[in-house]
Amino acid sequence: MDLDRLQRQIEFVVEIDKLKTIVRQTLITDGSRQEDSAEHSWHLAVMAMVLSEYANHEGQVDLVRVLKMVLVHDLVEIDAGDTFCYDEIGNQGKLAREQKAAERLFGLLPDDLAAEFRRLWDEFELRETPEAKFAGALDRLQPLLNNCATSGRMWQHHEVTSDMVMRRNQPIEEGSPELWDYAAGMIRDAVSKGWLKE
Amino acid sequence: MDLDRLQRQIEFVVEIDKLKTIVRQTLITDGSRQEDSAEHSWHLAVMAMVLSEYANHEGQVDLVRVLKMVLVHDLVEIDAGDTFCYDEIGNQGKLAREQKAAERLFGLLPDDLAAEFRRLWDEFELRETPEAKFAGALDRLQPLLNNCATSGRMWQHHEVTSDMVMRRNQPIEEGSPELWDYAAGMIRDAVSKGWLKE
Repeated sequence: MDLDRLQRQIEFVVEIDKLKTIVRQTLITDGSRQEDSAEHSWHLAVMAMVLSEYANHEGQVDLVRVLKMVLVHDLVEIDAGDTFCYDEIGNQGKLAREQKAAERLFGLLPDDLAAEFRRLWDEFELRETPEAKFAGALDRLQPLLNNCATSGRMWQHHEVTSDMVMRRNQPIEEGSPELWDYAAGMIRDAVSKGWLKE
Repeated sequence: MDLDRLQRQIEFVVEIDKLKTIVRQTLITDGSRQEDSAEHSWHLAVMAMVLSEYANHEGQVDLVRVLKMVLVHDLVEIDAGDTFCYDEIGNQGKLAREQKAAERLFGLLPDDLAAEFRRLWDEFELRETPEAKFAGALDRLQPLLNNCATSGRMWQHHEVTSDMVMRRNQPIEEGSPELWDYAAGMIRDAVSKGWLKE
């Protein structure tokens, strides 16, 4: 066995524990605190298992690639931090910060695994394949579900409006028209309940 | 589209958010707090991606089933709570509590998905297939890595000894002899550093 290889793999596994310290602008459903990016990634992965029948190109979507993508999609935040989706200034430097993070983090792995993780992250970011579009849809749907489960408290805190939420979530349609129908209904419902300002 | 089916799937997705509130007896690597079962499940899934080459029956292990098993293996804790592995009294009622939890939770899903989730959880618990043995090995290795990264603070807190840790982690060997060699070395090292009492 190549002990140096195993050592690098273990060091990566220990390093990524830091994703548990990256706090997102979404509450967990009991409203007690904000969720972190490791929990969020887990939630997306189980969602993929439960909802894959609604993916575009149903029956052709490769579930294992969706799972892998959602599991690794936020790892770069360990160095780059979580950028709130409605923060325009924060989003300007996001790409450069994340590219640098990807090089350092995936570079901890042996070359073959580093290349696989990089490919998965690039695929997720590019949103071109059916798998990436579906993974991206889940990445938007999950905070929407949590925002509705907590009566829109974080929307109100950040003064987010229904136009902004509609625009942010519209790409769900590319990954799954059915889930987008459902999501758009939730957004309208949130407005009618006063959780979200028009 | 079957709206009742989608509604049940979404309700399950919202319900399982509660796994983020189940606190484990393991610290995250910066030592700032205990980890929760959702983060732990995510960590195991990425470990499966990184370490699957060390699984017994290498090349025959079905990674997607390993991923699915580790993603769902702790869901029953939403009702049954996390039982500390060294808590003998707590472990006596564990099986009955978890069986009941599995029925309620997986029962929220449409029948086909409920059956799939139940099969995955049963497979994980039985530890008979190569996939379940490897998933079980990861479930033991991850807290060991975190305990070593935090100088054994939770071992000391719970007065855990090296014999107990050796016995607890020995089943790693069934899932991966290489990872067990590595783990046994870490345990010996933890003793020599004074993190773990003999």
